[in-house]
Amino acid sequence: MSKILVFAGSTRKDSFNKRLAKCAANAAKSAGAEVTYFDLTEYPMPMYDGDLETAEGLPETVRKLKEIFKQHNGLIIASPEYNSSFSGVLKNTIDWVSRQEGQEPSLAVFKNKYALLLSASPGALGGLRGLVGLRSMLSNIQVTVVPDQLSISKAHEAFNENGELLDAKQLQQLNTMTLNFVNVLKKLDVK
Amino acid sequence: MSKILVFAGSTRKDSFNKRLAKCAANAAKSAGAEVTYFDLTEYPMPMYDGDLETAEGLPETVRKLKEIFKQHNGLIIASPEYNSSFSGVLKNTIDWVSRQEGQEPSLAVFKNKYALLLSASPGALGGLRGLVGLRSMLSNIQVTVVPDQLSISKAHEAFNENGELLDAKQLQQLNTMTLNFVNVLKKLDVK
Amino acid sequence: MSKILVFAGSTRKDSFNKRLAKCAANAAKSAGAEVTYFDLTEYPMPMYDGDLETAEGLPETVRKLKEIFKQHNGLIIASPEYNSSFSGVLKNTIDWVSRQEGQEPSLAVFKNKYALLLSASPGALGGLRGLVGLRSMLSNIQVTVVPDQLSISKAHEAFNENGELLDAKQLQQLNTMTLNFVNVLKKLDVK
Amino acid sequence: MSKILVFAGSTRKDSFNKRLAKCAANAAKSAGAEVTYFDLTEYPMPMYDGDLETAEGLPETVRKLKEIFKQHNGLIIASPEYNSSFSGVLKNTIDWVSRQEGQEPSLAVFKNKYALLLSASPGALGGLRGLVGLRSMLSNIQVTVVPDQLSISKAHEAFNENGELLDAKQLQQLNTMTLNFVNVLKKLDVK
Repeated sequence: MSKILVFAGSTRKDSFNKRLAKCAANAAKSAGAEVTYFDLTEYPMPMYDGDLETAEGLPETVRKLKEIFKQHNGLIIASPEYNSSFSGVLKNTIDWVSRQEGQEPSLAVFKNKYALLLSASPGALGGLRGLVGLRSMLSNIQVTVVPDQLSISKAHEAFNENGELLDAKQLQQLNTMTLNFVNVLKKLDVK
Repeated sequence: MSKILVFAGSTRKDSFNKRLAKCAANAAKSAGAEVTYFDLTEYPMPMYDGDLETAEGLPETVRKLKEIFKQHNGLIIASPEYNSSFSGVLKNTIDWVSRQEGQEPSLAVFKNKYALLLSASPGALGGLRGLVGLRSMLSNIQVTVVPDQLSISKAHEAFNENGELLDAKQLQQLNTMTLNFVNVLKKLDVK
Repeated sequence: MSKILVFAGSTRKDSFNKRLAKCAANAAKSAGAEVTYFDLTEYPMPMYDGDLETAEGLPETVRKLKEIFKQHNGLIIASPEYNSSFSGVLKNTIDWVSRQEGQEPSLAVFKNKYALLLSASPGALGGLRGLVGLRSMLSNIQVTVVPDQLSISKAHEAFNENGELLDAKQLQQLNTMTLNFVNVLKKLDVK
Repeated sequence: MSKILVFAGSTRKDSFNKRLAKCAANAAKSAGAEVTYFDLTEYPMPMYDGDLETAEGLPETVRKLKEIFKQHNGLIIASPEYNSSFSGVLKNTIDWVSRQEGQEPSLAVFKNKYALLLSASPGALGGLRGLVGLRSMLSNIQVTVVPDQLSISKAHEAFNENGELLDAKQLQQLNTMTLNFVNVLKKLDVK
């Protein structure tokens, strides 16, 4: 089984990270994975607040997204760098989705998952500083983050009008690391 | 000048980190600082979204909070650990507040500030894992984070009914590090 | 194939981390892996120095150790916490072993390897702070570090005279994470 | 008082980081600080080993270097990136120098010190990845690491034959951050 959930950590309509996430989704499909791409704007949720959770339980969007997470064993995240780290909206989504309900074991949604991290930014470093903390955080919640990662610098010049990576070398890097990622999931057959 | 802004990274009414932030605010006042305590719930803001910012500019709560940040040279943050890292709501607040408007120089709100980090959690580690990433992120946005930090474990048993730390050693640690922090700000007279 | 190289990051004769590494080596054998345990004192090497490398090439101990690394696809490292990080001697060993010779591709020794991280210390945190940087560093040199990790606090009281973990829960945690680690290597059959 | 100890984390004779350290030493002198530059090769020491320490105490070079550290309140470290992190020889030096002797309080050598971090590398990132862990480690041993830092990419082309930075912008950045660093030390008059 190689079912991969792909998303970006930003909500802007023309987000470079959404474009990169879509490129990765296509690469994963070509590599033989079942792929689900989603946009954080489809799952609006309030800021996590313990009182709200106690009073009302998980918001409906959170429940739906949790179910989607559970149906996949791989994550590909294209994460923008905001203030040298991941975005608040990405973290808030992870915070809600990580909450237990009923008899669910702790971290049921993340445990045993594998993740591949990407980033894009108009700057020279391509958002790579933001992946340091994201990698560390995901590891701490039981996700195996593969060492391959790709950061696209000068992202405003990196994609053609169809949203494809223009640079042949970057495209090949993305395809290779996505293929390797898909193959790891197939071999492990993690549930 | 020693003007310190104190807040917690969670919004729950009975948040342990709010209690800890208030203890620190009192300690800073006793040490001779001008102190402003605020609660993130007083400044509700949407998730940061680049399209929203382009269309409407900064939300009014963000503008107000930015002004408050600018009037202080020290930050004391009591940061809960959510999934081994800072909370989404804290990061979202920082992401909004860091945005430039008009002729403002980059990171005008954070540059030259000093910060003291605290955490509280019901667990055995007191939320200290979450401070690793917070320290790194704040450093990257030009905040000098002092090396002292305090993590209160078993936070549900740590405060009395007046919200004061019960453990004399912890109380002294907090008072000492807050006093040192205030003295650094006084000596530097950072604007 | 599941061939695992096990070692500790300290050289002291009665090192707690050596004891822990040996426990892990036994657990890995019981889980069906081929296991090689070695002691850093068996491979003494100078401090890495670029001039020395240029003048004399890799020291003989480094060459031997590189060959041993290449014959394994898994690493289990019990890493002491020195000044909140990994030890200088561990880093120096990794620095030497990572050096290319001849036609070798970059990072030939680390690429595609999987690692499981452990730590032990007399303190209350068991050396877990030191694993943050080790995890990050190994990821950056193409090692997949599994999210499971174990930190043994109060290490001076944690082992019996045969060097076995006294606490049944810790022993089971170690056995379970080692078994899972061995199974991942078997499934992946990484070369 | 503004007494600054400047050194590089590598031992190679023509080390780019030594050149950068010397540039910073000159900048600090021009800014009015008392500056001591030293080379790690002047203080050769064995790998830290607890048994060796117990049997023989601190090596003479370690004792001498500890005394030098104690006479300064600022550190400027130009740290090469080895395997995405600081070098083994730098960490080993810090590990030895941090050891207590006699009635010395814990971390006497590092507590209350301020540090400015630099890096140089032939690569495109200039060694900046290695500063992440160094910053975190130094903070954990009670050093206040200022947020300014400078990473010199393409270091093999960055210096003239007198070892001076060729790029006017980089030179100004170094001078500005060094001046600010010196001024912080003067204002704080940390002992």
